[in-house]
Amino acid sequence: MLLYDMRTAMNPRRVRIFLAEKGLQIPIQAVDGSKNENRTAAFLAINPLGKLPVLQLDDGSYISESIAICRYLEALHPQNPLFGEDPKTQAIIEMWTRRLESEMVLPLTSAFRHTGAYWQGKLVQNPALGHWWREQALEAYAWLDQVLADRAFVATDRYSMADIVLQCALIMAKPTGMPIPPDCTHISRWYADVSARPTARA
Amino acid sequence: MLLYDMRTAMNPRRVRIFLAEKGLQIPIQAVDGSKNENRTAAFLAINPLGKLPVLQLDDGSYISESIAICRYLEALHPQNPLFGEDPKTQAIIEMWTRRLESEMVLPLTSAFRHTGAYWQGKLVQNPALGHWWREQALEAYAWLDQVLADRAFVATDRYSMADIVLQCALIMAKPTGMPIPPDCTHISRWYADVSARPTARA
Repeated sequence: MLLYDMRTAMNPRRVRIFLAEKGLQIPIQAVDGSKNENRTAAFLAINPLGKLPVLQLDDGSYISESIAICRYLEALHPQNPLFGEDPKTQAIIEMWTRRLESEMVLPLTSAFRHTGAYWQGKLVQNPALGHWWREQALEAYAWLDQVLADRAFVATDRYSMADIVLQCALIMAKPTGMPIPPDCTHISRWYADVSARPTARA
Repeated sequence: MLLYDMRTAMNPRRVRIFLAEKGLQIPIQAVDGSKNENRTAAFLAINPLGKLPVLQLDDGSYISESIAICRYLEALHPQNPLFGEDPKTQAIIEMWTRRLESEMVLPLTSAFRHTGAYWQGKLVQNPALGHWWREQALEAYAWLDQVLADRAFVATDRYSMADIVLQCALIMAKPTGMPIPPDCTHISRWYADVSARPTARA
């Protein structure tokens, strides 16, 4: 297998942290988004959407979408499950993963896409949209802080894929100008905990 | 189990079609969004986000997020798999499900949320945002038409969860003013096929 990676981007980081948590190693092919290497004809043949990460399987086929990649790897390597060990736990972890994606990740990434220098020239930026999404992100932070008030991890009593999704969003949030608000003490406590894991810099 | 349903909404319909395809029956509790029944204290205790569908398990706990619910039911009832029968097929179906969600479902639902009469008073509508999302939806239709040019179903050679996700988005798209563009003949062919399934009106 070969993992097409983009070092600083949010979604590839999910896979790298997942691999580190599982103790797995996969050869990595770096793709540099700042040089538009993900928009070349060669890469668009790998993923027509131009997105990272992509996992090349040994039969030559490609899987994109970070969660699909991680779930595939979990099926091959079920030890230390990050998607849950039974159907109910799996459902709770996916519920929280998807809640985080729609409520928190989407506003953060959308605000960045419409205001960030990285995205200039890569898409039609609309600052008014960026502002609207930023407001949504602030509301989401307030919601999330309450969610984390009485729990150590997002979905269950163990670190899971839902934590990875949130962790990677918040790693991106700081340099893109939407860091955890100072009054969100529960998020900050959770973030300090997951950032202290040996896998956090994968 | 008990399924909290909202008859006309997109996400609950995914679960109803999934159940019909699997030949499963679950008692249904209807929640009327037009009467804000999903914003009552009683319902927010079931799902704090006020969203449908929600599956109540026999132990009294709740699972929300349509895909999490369907995947849970698939784990309990693996016959006639709609998420795929092996890890690679499962990954391809999830890849396509997520591609459709980000590229097609998000623009369609976002345009509706910012322009639709149903959402007036339920959120802060921004017509400029609705217009921007509508443009994204039109681009997504063009992309999707090419995707479907050479295949019978979205993800594999069989009807899958990815088809259900697209089908439910397009059922919603017509009455909300963003029907399949006339030149998207491959989407129209696919949509006619899936609409002819006995489960399409579940």
